[in-house]
Amino acid sequence: MTEPTLDIVAIGNAIVDVLAQADDAFVTSEGVAKGSMRLMDEETSDSLYSRMGPGREISGGSAANTVAGMAMLGCKCGFIGQVADDQLGEVFAHDIRANGVVFDTAVRSGQPSTARCLILVTPDAQRTMNTFLGASQFLPEAAIDRDQIASARILYLEGYLWDPAEPRAAMQAAIRIAHEAGRKVAFTLSDTFCIARHGDDFRKQIAEGAFDILFANENELLALTGGDDFDAAVQEIAAQVETLVVTRGSHGAVAVQKGVYAQVAAEPIEKIVDTTGAGDLFAAGFLAGQAQGRSLEDSLHMGAIAAAEVISHYGARPEAKLDQLVKARLG
Amino acid sequence: MTEPTLDIVAIGNAIVDVLAQADDAFVTSEGVAKGSMRLMDEETSDSLYSRMGPGREISGGSAANTVAGMAMLGCKCGFIGQVADDQLGEVFAHDIRANGVVFDTAVRSGQPSTARCLILVTPDAQRTMNTFLGASQFLPEAAIDRDQIASARILYLEGYLWDPAEPRAAMQAAIRIAHEAGRKVAFTLSDTFCIARHGDDFRKQIAEGAFDILFANENELLALTGGDDFDAAVQEIAAQVETLVVTRGSHGAVAVQKGVYAQVAAEPIEKIVDTTGAGDLFAAGFLAGQAQGRSLEDSLHMGAIAAAEVISHYGARPEAKLDQLVKARLG
Repeated sequence: MTEPTLDIVAIGNAIVDVLAQADDAFVTSEGVAKGSMRLMDEETSDSLYSRMGPGREISGGSAANTVAGMAMLGCKCGFIGQVADDQLGEVFAHDIRANGVVFDTAVRSGQPSTARCLILVTPDAQRTMNTFLGASQFLPEAAIDRDQIASARILYLEGYLWDPAEPRAAMQAAIRIAHEAGRKVAFTLSDTFCIARHGDDFRKQIAEGAFDILFANENELLALTGGDDFDAAVQEIAAQVETLVVTRGSHGAVAVQKGVYAQVAAEPIEKIVDTTGAGDLFAAGFLAGQAQGRSLEDSLHMGAIAAAEVISHYGARPEAKLDQLVKARLG
Repeated sequence: MTEPTLDIVAIGNAIVDVLAQADDAFVTSEGVAKGSMRLMDEETSDSLYSRMGPGREISGGSAANTVAGMAMLGCKCGFIGQVADDQLGEVFAHDIRANGVVFDTAVRSGQPSTARCLILVTPDAQRTMNTFLGASQFLPEAAIDRDQIASARILYLEGYLWDPAEPRAAMQAAIRIAHEAGRKVAFTLSDTFCIARHGDDFRKQIAEGAFDILFANENELLALTGGDDFDAAVQEIAAQVETLVVTRGSHGAVAVQKGVYAQVAAEPIEKIVDTTGAGDLFAAGFLAGQAQGRSLEDSLHMGAIAAAEVISHYGARPEAKLDQLVKARLG
């Protein structure tokens, strides 16, 4: 096993977010549950776009947000995801590269266009996501760079991308490559809707040891185990993965790693503006802490710091210098 | 003269801004004066884009920002400007319509693409603008809707658009239509570079009564008059236009209307994040005040309130509800 040259390589949806303010009544009238994520076709997306308020376009995508944050924390990162040959595809590619992430996935010609996520941000800072996956769902197995996967300490995968068949096959191939190379595989459950659709498969993957590091929020963990006892759910899943990280919103987060338990409170924030990307950046901080050899508790703390930064402004990519924030808090 | 159905119709560049943080060293290394605006071709724009940091795309364009702000202040607004048939053109059109502005200019097919302005925001919140005018510079005279111009109380024009020949001709036609219909014409000098290139023409237009309302910042006013005495410059130009409005950054603003003088201090702001759009939103507040029959001083005050809002966050379009901010301050 050679020394890894990348800290992480992530496979995820390559999405540009379109963030707009919306009031609760608008979200209700769209028939969507506040705080959720739903998939839609291009026609439905265009229709919603025509009704929603003025937007701001900021690159997104769950795993992409995570590696963008990790790069800002000094990690060497790669990203694999599918954009189309259009202006939003250029925006996505520019932004992730400008964050210092290696991004070499070949652009896909023709329709559909680059994925976009219409995000309605309500006055309570909650985000409701309406995603047109576009080109993103056609990530082919051929886009998986075997050498790159083998060169990265961690392979990071988002549950969102388990939904379309082609990228799922690509991710399964990547898991095999990573494990054959002796690397760790990290997976985020992403959303309860993913568990509703793929829960059996996720449980099977976990039982068979596909994931060494598992990220979930409290709702996702309970959906995965089917119980309503948080501690029991943590115990059940922690027994099956090397590292389990569970975020609990304003109640902080917990982690269990090889039987060692740690927890952290949420970081105090002056004003929460937009919760988009909170979980993605928590994962970024945690994984960066682990890559830098920090303790389990300090890694959780880094997650909380990165999450706090990203929810203090619009968009799921950090604006402040995360490395300086961490240094000021943890040294 | 029939009663106007619009408060204002503006003609301006239809631009999507790409805002990125940059340090002073980067701006210096690009050989551009901090705080300035420069025009560039697509190749130069693409090259700069490849070197600048991660961006956020927010609709811009000077006059477009002004009418977007006025619409948020309850005014009935129209906008005329040229976008291309591409994703950034869709973004521009969506955003301005979502602000409640009537925007009917036909999309232009083929190259060049929709205008974009690469904005480097330094830690002092100063913005340095690098503009590729793209489709915007091909606004044809045919895009001028005679009935719409005649139906608006004020025709608002940006100096930036005086540079390319085709839109300049369109604006000159619009000035004639507006004056024939007994409407006011407002003009902003936009930038000292516009005065460097078109100062003689601007002075001639002013002397001939083309502009009833003139907006300038202090530097532009002095560039226009060629002197260094602010009060003398105000006096000189105020004698030639019905209303002169001059912004002075953190020193507030002054206005002279038919011999009546008013001034206002800058609004206190907790933290200035990005000064992009400050002048545009000052004009929005002032013109909305005038449209609503407020005093000269209160109109200046509305300008200061709108400008303060837009410099408290990234991007030149307001995020907070401007009408509520004004109501809280002025009733």
